[in-house]
Amino acid sequence: MPPRVALELAVQDPAGAVIAADVGARRVELCSALGATGGITPSAALIEAVIDAAAVVPTSDSAPILEVHVLIRPRPGGFVYSPAEHDLMLREVILSVDAGADGVVVGALTPSGTVDVARTRALVDAADDAEVTFHRALDVVADPVAALDALAELGVARVLTSGGAARAAEGLDRLGALVERSAELGIEIMAGGGVTAADIPALLAVGVDAVHLSAKRTVKDAGGPGGGGDAGYEVTDQTLAEAAARALRTTVES
Amino acid sequence: MPPRVALELAVQDPAGAVIAADVGARRVELCSALGATGGITPSAALIEAVIDAAAVVPTSDSAPILEVHVLIRPRPGGFVYSPAEHDLMLREVILSVDAGADGVVVGALTPSGTVDVARTRALVDAADDAEVTFHRALDVVADPVAALDALAELGVARVLTSGGAARAAEGLDRLGALVERSAELGIEIMAGGGVTAADIPALLAVGVDAVHLSAKRTVKDAGGPGGGGDAGYEVTDQTLAEAAARALRTTVES
Repeated sequence: MPPRVALELAVQDPAGAVIAADVGARRVELCSALGATGGITPSAALIEAVIDAAAVVPTSDSAPILEVHVLIRPRPGGFVYSPAEHDLMLREVILSVDAGADGVVVGALTPSGTVDVARTRALVDAADDAEVTFHRALDVVADPVAALDALAELGVARVLTSGGAARAAEGLDRLGALVERSAELGIEIMAGGGVTAADIPALLAVGVDAVHLSAKRTVKDAGGPGGGGDAGYEVTDQTLAEAAARALRTTVES
Repeated sequence: MPPRVALELAVQDPAGAVIAADVGARRVELCSALGATGGITPSAALIEAVIDAAAVVPTSDSAPILEVHVLIRPRPGGFVYSPAEHDLMLREVILSVDAGADGVVVGALTPSGTVDVARTRALVDAADDAEVTFHRALDVVADPVAALDALAELGVARVLTSGGAARAAEGLDRLGALVERSAELGIEIMAGGGVTAADIPALLAVGVDAVHLSAKRTVKDAGGPGGGGDAGYEVTDQTLAEAAARALRTTVES
């Protein structure tokens, strides 16, 4: 039986999706340039390739098919967007859903630091039947519990949050408050932000619906003078992903 | 009369393309996460939006319509790709050209540090009638002049190179050698890599066919704990772009 609490892996390539399916993750969040920017919208071909990879037969009959949720974020930085950027995000949502994404991951704030209700409604509408996750833009709003009410009202399925901290393991109090409020609203709380397998018991103890982590490691691969430095690139690490999945199963079933 | 030597701006959004058209650039190279990664393949919606923006009426009757060339690079790091990454790049080329891109910008090397001829041929074939630029992967091959022969043979229209240096202004000797060889091959040499307006006279003096720069500045806009740090995001700067265009005109016409 799959664990009650869902595991979501942030991945950047089809190999990451294969690992996610293999360890029994429920979802992947697909993004590009994760470490360097916090994640931006992937290319169309990457969306297609990851949806194809996720459609492989699950590892056991009881495991659900891996869902692909596409991060919609047209640039790094804050979450207050120009009209042109908003239009771009709407189009990114539509193209992702058309490509077969199960969900999209979005976030839009007003200049005063609240959820941009009108724009979030437009993004939810553009997603049509696909699920919408509101991402960690929630972690910079002044009153995240109030924001949760607004997002539930808009039909957002879940929020990805660290409880306002740099790492979710440091935001347990606020995560607990969000979980408490979410029960009345029918919106899911997914804990994410610097999560490792060791953090999972504490996150489950506050009652979150899902745990999100990248389980990534860096491949050293210098691009030379035109390659953007020596940072290499990130891949999903099977061992780290397995450790997270095991921590989730062990904690839930004990 | 437009200058003989083309100006290409590396841009990351439609506003960048509008600035490029306004200053009389011949081309934009469209990419995402430029500063953080050296550039990766943009989203489908961004490609569409920049092609739309570039189709605005040019600022004078004599100015050509701005061309949009899309960077095809599925991840940061080096330029030796897995079969899956190669397939992804082929698909990114096809989707970009289908969207109306005038060209694509690619690079693929073998593990031994030479141009990957078979894969570059496949990328050129996938681009169909669109132009192919080979990017700064050239700056890490052992023998760039020999590489130029192979690329010309494959039908690559131009190479983007710093002459092997971190900045093109420091690679003038090799740029000159590439220019000399290119004359016999019918392939263009585009100088790029940390170029500012002040570098342009020296680059033109060695005879390059085009100058490439990003003319970018950073907008400070912290994303909070979930936004990937405080690096903000980059935009094309009108003043820097104008200075480059002016340097190009002044040097060429004097």
